[in-house]
Amino acid sequence: MQFHHHGYVSQEPRVEPAAGIGLDRPEELPEEIDVLIVGSGPAGMITAAQLAQFPNVNTRIIERRGSRLELGQADGIQSRTVETFQAYGFAERIIAEAYRITETTFWNPDPDNPGHIIRTGRTADDATGISEFPHLVVNQARVLDYFAEFAERSPGRLVPDYGYEFVGLEVTDEGEYPVVVTLRRTVGEHEGEELTVRAKYVVGSDGASSKVRKSIGRRLKGDTSNHAWGVMDVLSETDYPDVRLKSIIHSDAGSILHIPREGGYLTRIYVDLGEVPEDDNHAVRNTPFEDIVKKLNEIIHPYTLEVKNVPWHSVYEVGHRVTDKFDDVPEDEVGTRSPRVFITGDACHTHSAKAGQGMNVSMQDGWNIAWKLGHVLTGRAPASLLDTYSAERQSVAVDLINFDKEWSTLMAKKSEDFDSPDEVAEFYVKTAEFPAGFMTEYSPSILTGEAKYQHLASGFPLGKRFKAAPVIRICDANPIYLGHQAFADGRYRIYVFADQAKAGEDSATERLAEWLGSDPESPLNKFTPVGEDVNSRFEVNVVYQQRYTEFDFSDVHPTFRPKNGPFQLQDYFRVHSIGDITDVNTAGEATSEEDIYDLRGVSRDGAIVIVRPDQYVANILPLDAREELTDFFAQSMTAQR
Amino acid sequence: MQFHHHGYVSQEPRVEPAAGIGLDRPEELPEEIDVLIVGSGPAGMITAAQLAQFPNVNTRIIERRGSRLELGQADGIQSRTVETFQAYGFAERIIAEAYRITETTFWNPDPDNPGHIIRTGRTADDATGISEFPHLVVNQARVLDYFAEFAERSPGRLVPDYGYEFVGLEVTDEGEYPVVVTLRRTVGEHEGEELTVRAKYVVGSDGASSKVRKSIGRRLKGDTSNHAWGVMDVLSETDYPDVRLKSIIHSDAGSILHIPREGGYLTRIYVDLGEVPEDDNHAVRNTPFEDIVKKLNEIIHPYTLEVKNVPWHSVYEVGHRVTDKFDDVPEDEVGTRSPRVFITGDACHTHSAKAGQGMNVSMQDGWNIAWKLGHVLTGRAPASLLDTYSAERQSVAVDLINFDKEWSTLMAKKSEDFDSPDEVAEFYVKTAEFPAGFMTEYSPSILTGEAKYQHLASGFPLGKRFKAAPVIRICDANPIYLGHQAFADGRYRIYVFADQAKAGEDSATERLAEWLGSDPESPLNKFTPVGEDVNSRFEVNVVYQQRYTEFDFSDVHPTFRPKNGPFQLQDYFRVHSIGDITDVNTAGEATSEEDIYDLRGVSRDGAIVIVRPDQYVANILPLDAREELTDFFAQSMTAQR
Repeated sequence: MQFHHHGYVSQEPRVEPAAGIGLDRPEELPEEIDVLIVGSGPAGMITAAQLAQFPNVNTRIIERRGSRLELGQADGIQSRTVETFQAYGFAERIIAEAYRITETTFWNPDPDNPGHIIRTGRTADDATGISEFPHLVVNQARVLDYFAEFAERSPGRLVPDYGYEFVGLEVTDEGEYPVVVTLRRTVGEHEGEELTVRAKYVVGSDGASSKVRKSIGRRLKGDTSNHAWGVMDVLSETDYPDVRLKSIIHSDAGSILHIPREGGYLTRIYVDLGEVPEDDNHAVRNTPFEDIVKKLNEIIHPYTLEVKNVPWHSVYEVGHRVTDKFDDVPEDEVGTRSPRVFITGDACHTHSAKAGQGMNVSMQDGWNIAWKLGHVLTGRAPASLLDTYSAERQSVAVDLINFDKEWSTLMAKKSEDFDSPDEVAEFYVKTAEFPAGFMTEYSPSILTGEAKYQHLASGFPLGKRFKAAPVIRICDANPIYLGHQAFADGRYRIYVFADQAKAGEDSATERLAEWLGSDPESPLNKFTPVGEDVNSRFEVNVVYQQRYTEFDFSDVHPTFRPKNGPFQLQDYFRVHSIGDITDVNTAGEATSEEDIYDLRGVSRDGAIVIVRPDQYVANILPLDAREELTDFFAQSMTAQR
Repeated sequence: MQFHHHGYVSQEPRVEPAAGIGLDRPEELPEEIDVLIVGSGPAGMITAAQLAQFPNVNTRIIERRGSRLELGQADGIQSRTVETFQAYGFAERIIAEAYRITETTFWNPDPDNPGHIIRTGRTADDATGISEFPHLVVNQARVLDYFAEFAERSPGRLVPDYGYEFVGLEVTDEGEYPVVVTLRRTVGEHEGEELTVRAKYVVGSDGASSKVRKSIGRRLKGDTSNHAWGVMDVLSETDYPDVRLKSIIHSDAGSILHIPREGGYLTRIYVDLGEVPEDDNHAVRNTPFEDIVKKLNEIIHPYTLEVKNVPWHSVYEVGHRVTDKFDDVPEDEVGTRSPRVFITGDACHTHSAKAGQGMNVSMQDGWNIAWKLGHVLTGRAPASLLDTYSAERQSVAVDLINFDKEWSTLMAKKSEDFDSPDEVAEFYVKTAEFPAGFMTEYSPSILTGEAKYQHLASGFPLGKRFKAAPVIRICDANPIYLGHQAFADGRYRIYVFADQAKAGEDSATERLAEWLGSDPESPLNKFTPVGEDVNSRFEVNVVYQQRYTEFDFSDVHPTFRPKNGPFQLQDYFRVHSIGDITDVNTAGEATSEEDIYDLRGVSRDGAIVIVRPDQYVANILPLDAREELTDFFAQSMTAQR
């Protein structure tokens, strides 16, 4: 965390100085809004949080409810999402609060006594060390709270506007605020009254029955039938031994997905209620709670579970569906006009809750569109950048639907139909990287380079998220993960992996630093307005191949320790070395003899790795790339000088 | 973190349900107060925070200032203190925010060019793995904020009363509230007005010039002369290479202690101004800031430091002094009456700031008296428990003064007088455990057992704090540190290290569990009131020698998974096993092949380790100790049945 450089911060340093709209943010919804976000679920809230980092963008987020979400809904948090929370500054707090999945157990009928279930397997949740971040379970409401806190503490001082329902919108071609949106107040003395606002852009994060989606004429397509689940958050007394472990239970009486929840007592239990007949007409939703508990007890026989308290329960039906495009521009008009309306999260894709994916994928949708809107609305990028949102995220959604179909089919399979009792466990382990959230891989585009130089950093696959790795920050000899310091501030990160020369010696690294800092054609100059700090749009980090004791901080080129802020103080945090890590967050990699070059396949001749504001690897280039570096950014950024 | 068991918690789970005084806490200072704390520094705030966990005790904390501390003062946080913060639930947040000391460098005159300093050594801050917690530097104001937050979120909903100055007190022998205290309002429309309150107990945490101390006739004794230091928090531009490392600089021009601060830019610099002549009459305090900066630049030559911004600076003089007793009962009256007034922190001991000790020792003073007052005022303990406060903490203060004298003498020594340039570095490494806060070792008393059974758990020295160690929590297969879950709730912890039998098999462990749960003479029954949960006064934890896969949670004796709360739900978090730790907070111990029995020298025949509410090891007993166990607690607890 970096602070005090704009003057001494006495109180909570997570509260940033207000700026722009945050200096005097009107409480009432204004008539003209830059970005109107509809719905304050995970997709909407991360969009708001990211845009609050752009205080010159007037963003509002409306919610039909009169106040914050209380309970229920999603609770699965992938490692990739915890990595995301790290960028929003609340990973360590939510980890301390959440349930942590370290193992999953599998229960099946006892072959000798098929009326009884027995534990047939257990598997580590992250057996292959996919991430240094844990896999968590926590009430969705808390995730929203943390994003709300971040948004309110950001320079834009954004807070949700509760009590507004989206009625409809029209995209006109008039003026600066071409989207005309009709809203209705849902609380207070003016309840029921409609009002009109005008927006530059609208983001629909309004769930599976999204009215924003309907207003742009898009539809969820896919399964014609639904599958039903009874779901409950319960406090219970039980002799089921794995009540505090994630467990997948198949018995002759049906199947259960059992998820322990935060706090050490609560559990979430999904009881499979089967395919819903086409003519059911939602009758399944009226299944009495007692029937679900009875079925649960049949499934876990010989164990019993007595419900003591039920904070929440529901019966829901869901099918596998996805929207064909996530904005308002038809495929054949792409390039002729820029999108004005976007949909995110459940508005784009619906599927089972079984793999704990929904909230996670939704948040990546939100982060993706948010920084792009921030860049376009602050003049950093041309509006064409917005075309990449649907292009990138729609194919992720298709992958999600396909994975979840496979997974939920397996979950719904009758135990007698399995080829082997380990079929579920094997699928679980084999596919672990997907549900952990790390299989997203964007295709080459204006934002993602071609694989020409992938060999210079093979462990940072282009289009996948930048996988952090241990280094030593040389200024204070602190062992850190390179990547964990990347704050969600909308900036690009340029990671320079030095060649074998020491800091200060003539080398490709030194020449790159000199060019980056001084040449008008370097991206740092070309895309940063005159008068702004050189690190205001790009954060340049360097990693040296020497141990940190082999050179001094003051040997490092000034480009890697830029001056910034009102006192023009050096940024000390951007210079790293390899080193022995004896004390880091997790033990796995920490004791390795390998350094970051080995761990991530980085060439000893050095490499440049460009990382987007949402942590995806944008490009890899050799240290002597000059034109290529500038040209790459020129595809998605607007020259400022 | 455990919650939801008293009903679903939708918002921040760190906010506990209000109880007792917290349900309807009067805003104005009442006339009768159970515990009046004077002064809201670190000693006072931890006292308040701990007492807020006893909502049936009416505690108030007054502060002369009209609002919270803004800046300045102490900033060194020992590992022992971070361990303490863990118990108060904010370790992970303050770690994320603070500067972390991993190394210290030593600078001395260049032998070939004595007018220039050179780096003569560097040492790891915790070279021997004293603690799994880091050594931090952070603004004292933030420490106070976190304790204030804890106090306000505790059942007692305690908040400081700003704007009251302590004038004087008298200990009468009248009534339930025998201490008559005169206060004066320092802010608001009644500024200057005096008022009288009556208290059962008063805790003076009012600093080196404590009026509470004076009111009980005690005096700081020790050095007759003072040493002066110029101290500054600065944002600067410098070519000094170790500006972000703790460094100790001796040059011909004087000496400096250089401490980086939180946020990556700020540094605290102590410039030695030498012994203060007896007739100085505080003239040294008028040393101009510019003179101190000039001296600083002379010391660090050939480097320079240009100050850009100065949030805080001061010149202070301090001597090594300690009060002979920390309460109002003269030595020769101990045992005839119980103390009513206590002093803590700087009111008891003053010394240099050089070893970063003051705030840390002060907090341990405060925690010590706080839980004891909580126990006495809730009828858990007889008033005689309060005699142990001064007995325990006064000798800690004497050790502190002696250590700091040695350390500050070394710091003040001229570089030409050193036997070797490494003299400072060697002392620093050799004595590391003391400044890390782990050398406190209480002598045998009603709270600390004799060493009779120390051999059963040699790695948990009696009277020293319980050193956490890695285990697996079996219910959820989470790798944790046994000890990190000990919340500052005023309860005793009983750690049962099982013998070699498995859970559920007939064994000394099983028989102990049975006795603990069922025998009226067991401490769990004898010292817990009828009608209260069996875990309301003692938290019993068990560690088994098997791996967690070798038995089921449901095999464990019910004493180790007690039912509690309105729904009488099982506590799942008290049962542990040895196990491979592949992913824990720090790497040091995590990769060890040793289990907790090896790491802490615990007998394979098992042992009982009793830990006080403030984390110190109170006693060690064999598994078959019955009478001894009850008798030990009977010395400091009151039978409830």
